[in-house]
Amino acid sequence: MKCNCDYVLHCNTLEPHYDNCATVWETSHPGKEYPKNEDGTIRLPNKNLDKLESDVLYHLGLDTKNYDLPALFGDVKFVCIGGTKHRMREFAEFVSFNVFHGKNMKLVNLTKHSHRYATYKVGPVLSVSHGIGIPSMTTALQEIIKLLHYAKAVDPIVFRIGTSGGLGIPPGSVVVSSWGLNGYLEKSYDIPVMGRSLKLPAILDKRLSQEIYSMASEEDEFQTYLGGTMGADDFYRGQARLDGPFCDHTEEDKLEFLEKLSEMGVRNIEMEAPAFAALTKEAGIRGAIVCVTLINRLEGDQVSTEKGTLLQWQKRPMAIVAKFISKYLDSMNGWK
Amino acid sequence: MKCNCDYVLHCNTLEPHYDNCATVWETSHPGKEYPKNEDGTIRLPNKNLDKLESDVLYHLGLDTKNYDLPALFGDVKFVCIGGTKHRMREFAEFVSFNVFHGKNMKLVNLTKHSHRYATYKVGPVLSVSHGIGIPSMTTALQEIIKLLHYAKAVDPIVFRIGTSGGLGIPPGSVVVSSWGLNGYLEKSYDIPVMGRSLKLPAILDKRLSQEIYSMASEEDEFQTYLGGTMGADDFYRGQARLDGPFCDHTEEDKLEFLEKLSEMGVRNIEMEAPAFAALTKEAGIRGAIVCVTLINRLEGDQVSTEKGTLLQWQKRPMAIVAKFISKYLDSMNGWK
Repeated sequence: MKCNCDYVLHCNTLEPHYDNCATVWETSHPGKEYPKNEDGTIRLPNKNLDKLESDVLYHLGLDTKNYDLPALFGDVKFVCIGGTKHRMREFAEFVSFNVFHGKNMKLVNLTKHSHRYATYKVGPVLSVSHGIGIPSMTTALQEIIKLLHYAKAVDPIVFRIGTSGGLGIPPGSVVVSSWGLNGYLEKSYDIPVMGRSLKLPAILDKRLSQEIYSMASEEDEFQTYLGGTMGADDFYRGQARLDGPFCDHTEEDKLEFLEKLSEMGVRNIEMEAPAFAALTKEAGIRGAIVCVTLINRLEGDQVSTEKGTLLQWQKRPMAIVAKFISKYLDSMNGWK
Repeated sequence: MKCNCDYVLHCNTLEPHYDNCATVWETSHPGKEYPKNEDGTIRLPNKNLDKLESDVLYHLGLDTKNYDLPALFGDVKFVCIGGTKHRMREFAEFVSFNVFHGKNMKLVNLTKHSHRYATYKVGPVLSVSHGIGIPSMTTALQEIIKLLHYAKAVDPIVFRIGTSGGLGIPPGSVVVSSWGLNGYLEKSYDIPVMGRSLKLPAILDKRLSQEIYSMASEEDEFQTYLGGTMGADDFYRGQARLDGPFCDHTEEDKLEFLEKLSEMGVRNIEMEAPAFAALTKEAGIRGAIVCVTLINRLEGDQVSTEKGTLLQWQKRPMAIVAKFISKYLDSMNGWK
């Protein structure tokens, strides 16, 4: 018997509980938070995949017929995704130098001929660009999830490193996300599926976000925060900005809205968080979001800091995630 | 006095008319379909822009302080946007060879240092990549609209050339869109703005779409159709596909949904149409969408046609748009 709330997946409770289903989902699967196979590989609930002779991961330019995915990607332990190809190449270089001390340095974009996303691999770390916004990110992420499944990767962890606008914190600060908030101020990712809304809870792995948050050090030149992240579907009025081509609201409306977000525990605004949280959870994969803030939205809308500074700031989430990866690998044998 | 329907912009009618507001909007401004300035330059309704000392078009890597936008882009008559950087470079090359006979051949990505979108300029034609999905496309499009406004471009026309899944038509066919349909089967683009839904009608310029459709020729190797285009927010279950990592529906559910779309007049599915239609209309810019179909969704989900064939098919929308541009410029003096 299924609950008749809109959280149709994974919801095994008996009573309707629409308003707090995300919470109920969190607490109703205490012993089975992630439905993976016993060996740590990813079990996908879609039985249609078994019927396919081969599966084309179209936007990654890979498939199960012409590529030996377990041989190529079976050793992946960490996937890090982020907006631009430039940043994800830089992350691969960063990991290569700082985690593997220059080993595995030859970087090749493994998905170049797809013309969509860029993918680099450094040992057990995969670095993939996902573009801007939820539909672009979920297209990449869903194919990455299928890739990890076919490759039989064991207990992979997926990170998103990104840029964002901060709320009441100094530009250059880093935010580790606890949950994603959609544009209607719900902690869920809503997808229209065949004309109806499918609502999925957008809560991130608590232990992982706290572990990453603990990587922050007093020696850092910046502050790190743990908090909620709003993922907007638009860069301009969808984030209450006044400087888009179209704007019907006033500065007072904007500030009132941003203050409301702050009171809800939102620390930053980007364009992917709820979907990232929902899909990693749905796949039974531990996922975390680490973003640097480029501006304080309570003080303005324009990203006008000098490009060189912005590029330096973008390395902060990389450094934190690389530190986590390094520590994780130190606890295992034979990886470094 | 304003109508209290959700179509809050441009709606000057006195009675509530939520259900058919898109139509009412179409017919209630018969003499003033596009609110441009008298000289054909773009008038933006956002007065906050006048207060800015300079405006940073962050994702294009341009601004009004360090760049002479009228000198650089004031001659733009046509903007063509599409998903990949590769395709938009190819379009610029195509236009250079086929419209300008090899003139202006040196192609430089004018927005390379933004790390986000690629922009090429061939005479009065601008070719810009927009990534995948509505939030990525609207981030580029809104900055392009501001760019055209600041550059004082006169009567510009914006095209989107793309790839899509067809409904009941042979793969390789081209669809010129009449309107965009969102995931809830409404001809509107819905953006969450400060927690509330802003609904904008997603009807494309009728005369322009018919003019482009008339470019199709009996000598073409493919069929061209005029029809509705669904813009989905997800590539997999959001388009009723069965081959994503997650799927709760059956093949029968899928076919029932796709048949329903067909009956509504939808000819193809991509991921940008409603927002493109809504924002070009809102800015008073004539806009058109021309997509090739890579598969017939009534027959399958996987894009498994050989890459070389797919790349050849992607040139079909380019050829049609270039033909339109060529014909348009032939009717003017001093452009070619």
